[in-house]
Amino acid sequence: MSQSVGTLRQQVTGDLYAEVQTFYAQQMRRVDALDIEGFADTFTDDGEVVHAGGQRQSGRVEMIAGMRANLPRYQDIAVRHWFGHLLIEADPQDEDTVRVSYYTLVTQTDREGKVSFQPTFTVDDVLVRRDGRLLTRSRVIHRDSPAAPAAS
Amino acid sequence: MSQSVGTLRQQVTGDLYAEVQTFYAQQMRRVDALDIEGFADTFTDDGEVVHAGGQRQSGRVEMIAGMRANLPRYQDIAVRHWFGHLLIEADPQDEDTVRVSYYTLVTQTDREGKVSFQPTFTVDDVLVRRDGRLLTRSRVIHRDSPAAPAAS
Amino acid sequence: MSQSVGTLRQQVTGDLYAEVQTFYAQQMRRVDALDIEGFADTFTDDGEVVHAGGQRQSGRVEMIAGMRANLPRYQDIAVRHWFGHLLIEADPQDEDTVRVSYYTLVTQTDREGKVSFQPTFTVDDVLVRRDGRLLTRSRVIHRDSPAAPAAS
Repeated sequence: MSQSVGTLRQQVTGDLYAEVQTFYAQQMRRVDALDIEGFADTFTDDGEVVHAGGQRQSGRVEMIAGMRANLPRYQDIAVRHWFGHLLIEADPQDEDTVRVSYYTLVTQTDREGKVSFQPTFTVDDVLVRRDGRLLTRSRVIHRDSPAAPAAS
Repeated sequence: MSQSVGTLRQQVTGDLYAEVQTFYAQQMRRVDALDIEGFADTFTDDGEVVHAGGQRQSGRVEMIAGMRANLPRYQDIAVRHWFGHLLIEADPQDEDTVRVSYYTLVTQTDREGKVSFQPTFTVDDVLVRRDGRLLTRSRVIHRDSPAAPAAS
Repeated sequence: MSQSVGTLRQQVTGDLYAEVQTFYAQQMRRVDALDIEGFADTFTDDGEVVHAGGQRQSGRVEMIAGMRANLPRYQDIAVRHWFGHLLIEADPQDEDTVRVSYYTLVTQTDREGKVSFQPTFTVDDVLVRRDGRLLTRSRVIHRDSPAAPAAS
């Protein structure tokens, strides 16, 4: 892994960094508002999500159905997704394709104001730019597990 | 809400993104240090804060008095404000006015190192640039509450 | 402290902001993966870390030994470092030296998914750019403690 620091083929620009962060700020406001259709609209038509448990949702219809089934568990809590440590890499062959990896922490606040936490995850996304706006084409969600230190 | 993704009238630039983030990094260091006057100095003279409970503070004098009254509750804890998912939009009519929305999570660490959390909030700010530096002109703080999923 | 808002000698650019954030995203992925050698490679040869307790590690060899000694406590938990409120200032005399201050929150998730928190810290780094890549030359870690409000 050592080789990778500073050797990203293309340094992310400030503009792309801000564009990607803004995209996620908008996408997460929708998911946190339980705006399922609005959230699905931030994916391409053939967008795909692979959940940490291995379950795969392909296309907006499946995505919407899956989220609808999960709604009851959010009935009395305010959910917020927090991101950290984005790694953003534009495809050198296609500037409208962007690979992003990030940490997520999810808070759940109940009506009394008590905050609880879901386990942390690391997510790998492929974003594409269509008509000037970013969309998620694929998302793979990894549940963080204890690391095995490298032998030396 | 669907229309808004990617249709911000003006894409935030990397430079503005960094400027706004830096402003909040400075402002939050002051509030977390209980530097009340220093914090008030990051607002315009007529700056206004509307708290989640509806209480409104107008101008630096009211702001300082309100914070002073709250000091006792911070006596033995280290407070830190964490921000997430900034949405930044420069006013197309006036490049020195910037609207920002963001998530906040507040940690309180006691002397033994135990961390507790306040409920999460979403904040809407209007910033203005005066003599090259940003100041908060208005802040509206919303306590996050369970979302009502859109009917379909 | 009031004078400092907006009077950073040099406003951070979007490109530098993204470069620094990307550096930390890479560095923290290594520490969170317990990739000790990879983490040490993100420091200069004479890199130095001063821990919150006052312990000082100078150079990669000491750093690696110190981290190795701490490995047992991470055996069954997934550690993630979260950063907030970066203040980034390029040295006006030397554009390849960058001072950064930031907040950190560390989550530890056990195998059952239970998340616990270390106390929060504030960190002061000096980064240097060598052959186009950033490295940490020095890091001073401060444990956050209750603030003493300024007398007025």
